Amino acid sequence: MKKLLLVLLVASTVLSVSAQKTKFSVPVKKAKNGTLVTQTPKKAAGQQDMLQFAAEPIKNIRVGVIGLGMRGPGAVRRMMNIEGVEVVALCDVREERVEKVAKMVTDAGRKEPKKFSGDTSVWRQLSALPDLDLIYIATDWASHAKIGVQGMKDGKHVAIEVPAAMSMAEIWDLVNTSEQTRKHCMQLENCVYDFFELTALNMAQKGLFGEVLHTEGAYIHNLEPFWKDYWEDWRLQYNIKNYGDLYPTHGLGPVCQVLNMHRGDKMNYLVAFQTKTVCIPEFIERTQGRDVSADFRNGDHTITLIKTEMGKTINIQHNVATPRPYNRMYQLTGTKGFANKYPVGGLALTAESFGKEFVRPERGATKDHENLDGHSFVSKEMYDQLMKDYQHPIVNDELIETAKKVGGHGGMDFIMDYRLIYCLQNGLPLDMDVYDLAEWCAPIELTAISLENGSKPVEVPDFTRGAWNKIDGLKFALPK
Amino acid sequence: MKKLLLVLLVASTVLSVSAQKTKFSVPVKKAKNGTLVTQTPKKAAGQQDMLQFAAEPIKNIRVGVIGLGMRGPGAVRRMMNIEGVEVVALCDVREERVEKVAKMVTDAGRKEPKKFSGDTSVWRQLSALPDLDLIYIATDWASHAKIGVQGMKDGKHVAIEVPAAMSMAEIWDLVNTSEQTRKHCMQLENCVYDFFELTALNMAQKGLFGEVLHTEGAYIHNLEPFWKDYWEDWRLQYNIKNYGDLYPTHGLGPVCQVLNMHRGDKMNYLVAFQTKTVCIPEFIERTQGRDVSADFRNGDHTITLIKTEMGKTINIQHNVATPRPYNRMYQLTGTKGFANKYPVGGLALTAESFGKEFVRPERGATKDHENLDGHSFVSKEMYDQLMKDYQHPIVNDELIETAKKVGGHGGMDFIMDYRLIYCLQNGLPLDMDVYDLAEWCAPIELTAISLENGSKPVEVPDFTRGAWNKIDGLKFALPK
Repeated sequence: MKKLLLVLLVASTVLSVSAQKTKFSVPVKKAKNGTLVTQTPKKAAGQQDMLQFAAEPIKNIRVGVIGLGMRGPGAVRRMMNIEGVEVVALCDVREERVEKVAKMVTDAGRKEPKKFSGDTSVWRQLSALPDLDLIYIATDWASHAKIGVQGMKDGKHVAIEVPAAMSMAEIWDLVNTSEQTRKHCMQLENCVYDFFELTALNMAQKGLFGEVLHTEGAYIHNLEPFWKDYWEDWRLQYNIKNYGDLYPTHGLGPVCQVLNMHRGDKMNYLVAFQTKTVCIPEFIERTQGRDVSADFRNGDHTITLIKTEMGKTINIQHNVATPRPYNRMYQLTGTKGFANKYPVGGLALTAESFGKEFVRPERGATKDHENLDGHSFVSKEMYDQLMKDYQHPIVNDELIETAKKVGGHGGMDFIMDYRLIYCLQNGLPLDMDVYDLAEWCAPIELTAISLENGSKPVEVPDFTRGAWNKIDGLKFALPK
Repeated sequence: MKKLLLVLLVASTVLSVSAQKTKFSVPVKKAKNGTLVTQTPKKAAGQQDMLQFAAEPIKNIRVGVIGLGMRGPGAVRRMMNIEGVEVVALCDVREERVEKVAKMVTDAGRKEPKKFSGDTSVWRQLSALPDLDLIYIATDWASHAKIGVQGMKDGKHVAIEVPAAMSMAEIWDLVNTSEQTRKHCMQLENCVYDFFELTALNMAQKGLFGEVLHTEGAYIHNLEPFWKDYWEDWRLQYNIKNYGDLYPTHGLGPVCQVLNMHRGDKMNYLVAFQTKTVCIPEFIERTQGRDVSADFRNGDHTITLIKTEMGKTINIQHNVATPRPYNRMYQLTGTKGFANKYPVGGLALTAESFGKEFVRPERGATKDHENLDGHSFVSKEMYDQLMKDYQHPIVNDELIETAKKVGGHGGMDFIMDYRLIYCLQNGLPLDMDVYDLAEWCAPIELTAISLENGSKPVEVPDFTRGAWNKIDGLKFALPK
């Protein structure tokens, strides 16, 4: 009898785990307090973390680029403008894309890269090349992590477009592979290099906002002009089949850096809400005559709240559906100041943070409770001066000028590539590590779990597996 | 044995309910799906709802004002500028306040009001007066509902400052008393009458934004200059002893009107997050030398998400602590347009909603994925024209001019009082009913329940108890 009971219990546990597995990429359990918890895989014996990891310096970086659709060609063009980097191999499903970008390389007076095309597995040949240091991955979302994992196994550092991983299983695969192979695995999150974010990060690190308590970020970008441009309709299909915040990295990246995530703080849990679905199916029907409405899962607007160990909160939003002006929301609420990027940049500072003579009115508050129109953002002149004074030390006027000339979302893409190459060349830790990648991608599946369960809280794992408090704050590596 | 077990079970149930009761004003239970549910009291037999309730017209409204601190005197001053209203009684704990406001009335050439002062129960005498139609309640939060309930029992309509109720028990008390006495119970939520909100409501009702899917609102107002001004420190004490969104009505009111709450939609559940507490205790220590930090409960920043029956979402925030510019966030995300009030008013419209010639670029999206700076708000000129063209029909240029002259947060307080008096005079339903009051105040205790339970979802009751879908959309009453 006891034996039978035990068998039944075991069988029921197995059943329950397997039922969850069909829905989510990892088993989901309910913790004692009712929060939903995803399984954290165990580390192999002796497996070390990648915090502050630096590889041997590589004087001349040999790069292979996989994926030459909307993002790859721009990356190659930018690398033509960075010294000490050589694009040695190109890969895309479509041959004409490879040819076109190869011509861009030879037109720039460089040696013709090796060319790979024809199907969705030909990238394996590029990854296996012996004379290659870095694989730059700009394919569709679904293949990012798979190529990244293989790239590291093939002995290369990898840089992966956003989001680098679409599920908890993919995230853990990248973390484990990076830790085991001792290869860099960086997510190509460009928005952390946008001028306002980079300067605000420097201000935050210098204490101008006091302790930053609440932050906001978003990807609010009406994609109607772009749906038709994606190879085999992959981005639309992804939005049809999935819900949750499918694209959280642009919103999360910059604010996680300010909050020193896994460098003294960590995300504890999140909750997600979404509206019903209206705009995308209507648009596709209207413009392409296709009916994609059946079981379209992604809500028009998704909003996620995150609570951290140190008592901070993050609000991120996702909306690629409704007609709104572009907005990444970037906002910092600190104990001594406030920064807001959209729709217009604004800074509010206090006497305590900044010296009394610059501040009007004191601590940002109007003194007349009948007059609520009184803004207390600093003046346009002071704003401009502050943005200049607090330019982040990883950039300088010359670099910014080059970045603007070379382009890529106004220059931030160039700064991103430049820093990646610079740190590899000098054997420095990269600005973003594999745990940043993990944290900024985790909401994709964790928000789906919350939504699937009536907006219940879902635990965000500690991707460092115990080392989130080892590093004291984010510091970008500077020349020694 | 069976009897003993039964006794034990009953005892344990009672214990658990009573344990909840000490924390919250109503019993809290866990529903099957894990959502937390508060108890909805049963309606008495024959008790009718107050939807579209209209009282007999009252040509000359006799008003008694209770509470002459920060809000009461302004209300009396405004009523001196509205025809057909007589301030017949004044009440405050402090005699000098009553005298001062009574003089304002006689200085305006009106008859001297009856005067009540001296203690915190003297208002009962005002409430009991026979020749009184309306009690205007502007006391501290803790006494709002108690006075409102008694006022209705004493046969008067009541208008109560925000928040009109601080707990679920108080809310239900107001709802039941209004339904049973057939007296108006209106919350004095002024922000729904602010010019941008009122015009945007009209735009929304005319379909300019399509279907509004997601909305935001807030009370972000650094109260440092004001903490010392409240009678017996009540507002600070409230923030010390409570957490959650303690002041949600300014943020919720305007967006709930757009979403036709309990007029075709209803709130289903909410979740709340808050940051840790830093700024207020530090400020009080610094400026008043008092240590209020022990067990200070209200976090510096609180954020609440609400999901509605019709698949809409609401994001409301509360922050009276950190140095930020004043912000009520008011934002509407629709399927055909977008409105944003802070830090600068902006409208984005689409060809579908507004006619092609006015729209640039189409459906608010930039067509160049490298150029994300391109705003697609309408131009300043078009914005000004739209704000003029879509002025809400309950106001006109003359009324707005008077409102601005008389004042009260730039005029919105005057419009609020004017509408209250106008509707009572004409026997029309008021713009805001007791269910609006209930919905806009409910987050105060429901967010505390969510926070107390690790940010779990908490059901928002249907305060109409079954009639939320009876009325088809919000319509302000206009002259017959």
